[in-house]
Amino acid sequence: MARHYVTIKDIAKILNISVSTVSRALRDTYDVNQETKEKVLALAAELNYKPNFNATGLAKGSTHNLGVILPFITNYYFSTVITGIQEVAYNNGYNIILFVTNDSPERELAIMENLSVSSLDGLLVSISSDSDSCSHFQEIVDEGIPVVFFDRVASEIDTSKVMQDDYNGAFEAVTHLIENGYKKIAHIAGPKGLSFTEARLRGYLDALKQHNIEPNEDWVVYSGFSQEHGEADTRQLLQLQHQPDAIFAVNDRKAIGAMLTLKNKGIKVGEEFGVIGFTNDPMSTIISPSLSTIAEPAFEIGKLSCELLIKHITKKYFHAEEIVLPGKLIARESSSRKN
Amino acid sequence: MARHYVTIKDIAKILNISVSTVSRALRDTYDVNQETKEKVLALAAELNYKPNFNATGLAKGSTHNLGVILPFITNYYFSTVITGIQEVAYNNGYNIILFVTNDSPERELAIMENLSVSSLDGLLVSISSDSDSCSHFQEIVDEGIPVVFFDRVASEIDTSKVMQDDYNGAFEAVTHLIENGYKKIAHIAGPKGLSFTEARLRGYLDALKQHNIEPNEDWVVYSGFSQEHGEADTRQLLQLQHQPDAIFAVNDRKAIGAMLTLKNKGIKVGEEFGVIGFTNDPMSTIISPSLSTIAEPAFEIGKLSCELLIKHITKKYFHAEEIVLPGKLIARESSSRKN
Repeated sequence: MARHYVTIKDIAKILNISVSTVSRALRDTYDVNQETKEKVLALAAELNYKPNFNATGLAKGSTHNLGVILPFITNYYFSTVITGIQEVAYNNGYNIILFVTNDSPERELAIMENLSVSSLDGLLVSISSDSDSCSHFQEIVDEGIPVVFFDRVASEIDTSKVMQDDYNGAFEAVTHLIENGYKKIAHIAGPKGLSFTEARLRGYLDALKQHNIEPNEDWVVYSGFSQEHGEADTRQLLQLQHQPDAIFAVNDRKAIGAMLTLKNKGIKVGEEFGVIGFTNDPMSTIISPSLSTIAEPAFEIGKLSCELLIKHITKKYFHAEEIVLPGKLIARESSSRKN
Repeated sequence: MARHYVTIKDIAKILNISVSTVSRALRDTYDVNQETKEKVLALAAELNYKPNFNATGLAKGSTHNLGVILPFITNYYFSTVITGIQEVAYNNGYNIILFVTNDSPERELAIMENLSVSSLDGLLVSISSDSDSCSHFQEIVDEGIPVVFFDRVASEIDTSKVMQDDYNGAFEAVTHLIENGYKKIAHIAGPKGLSFTEARLRGYLDALKQHNIEPNEDWVVYSGFSQEHGEADTRQLLQLQHQPDAIFAVNDRKAIGAMLTLKNKGIKVGEEFGVIGFTNDPMSTIISPSLSTIAEPAFEIGKLSCELLIKHITKKYFHAEEIVLPGKLIARESSSRKN
């Protein structure tokens, strides 16, 4: 028969308190009252509870390995974030262990299940679309392992997070199109349910509302993040009887797909049809006309995430922080004033 | 006084044989004669020699961590190589520990000096331009740690290497320009001394020679790998009294820099001036006119390098292999027949 090891869940159940309270009591953090702490420690001793990491490793933050879990590395945004992470890690004597989920919830789950937490001091995570791993991340956080989410965050998990301001970036992008004479603005969005794509959608809708423009349901298309998705979404929009005169794309790759499709149809981008993206991928300066966009602070996001993680690892009483970095409108040719 | 640990260099010196022979004797490889092996083992025992990695880790290939040392991750080529490495590592239960040198020989050296080899089963390496670390890599190989070089290889070190066929790719690119009517072909090259840029230069020169075209020294410009380098190199070429009518660029980013500069000067790319690059970066399809190039098998290079490394780790008598993968000419608009 398999031996059952006592977990913090067992302790929480017996004492009828939350797993997170048990976790905080065991870690001796500031926000648990003394009585609860003593109860937890007494029961843990009685049941011979052992944390699921070895004492020489994670508990003391001494492996000097940081795990990074993220969907992709071949795109500009994520490779720039990793470069920021890597700079801070290197300067502080940490190694980066890289786990790429290919944006697959199954792969992400498999990585989480096989994660050797004893060889890591902490984790930096950007979740995959449709992530199934939130309970796994919660377990790891409950065990006292420092976790910082960046960009694609699991909002329900109480730990530090670093994001860009997706809502205001989208609001600014759409306002810019409106101010340049475009009034029939479509949005080619990301998949439903991902928090940052929802925030960009809300920014789009609120910018329309603020300018008394009625949103049109047909003009919001949800799909993936690739250039090909941008092409397909745009073909779909161009088949509508009532067509838009501008597109706000959830990222630059989709915006570039939109521009290539529009150019193929002989539609003049930046004259009769406005396009704006989100990222500031170097491709946006190379396509002609050049692509307007909201620049994301990718390097900064990597840098700050890693700095926060190291604070979680090295400071006993470090509060979780949520940092939201502003984007920046970069107006180029694709959103020039409508003729 | 600091204690001096016996190293394989000491053993080599005393026995007056090479470090690499000592290393092979200690690892019990096939290519050391029995007498030498016995001498080495006897002396190692006498001097109480201990390998500089712990026995539970590297020696048995049981950390399941692979180190990857490379110049950049923000460019398409390297991020695609890592994706290939990551796929094979994941499927074989290995983690990737990432070290980015920023193409700086000093950073590379610092990484090598601080490398905790006891936490690695092996290393995948693409050296930086002007690498100063060859002796460090040699030491690591001598200690019996599996190392595979990819793309930017240290040619003097005897271990497995995976490269693309830079010479033939360049030869094919330049031949293609010649066949399309361009005869005054310049080469905007990488830095001097890096083996793959030297190979591309030789391919360029031999293609000219084969078509009885006299090379012109002024038409070969050495610099870095960025788009900005491509722009500066092209401006330099356009200031010559005797100007070229085509450019073969060492990579796509430099080719794109060249195209943007030519377009700015009102020179019609793909009509009066031919351009071809090397990589097949997705940007090459987005710029207009689209960029002809030699497609590099980046994912395949990552995949094969990692497969080779795992063979080195798991097979006692695995011979070093050198694999050269062919590139593929992709003719697009920037090298269309000269008007």
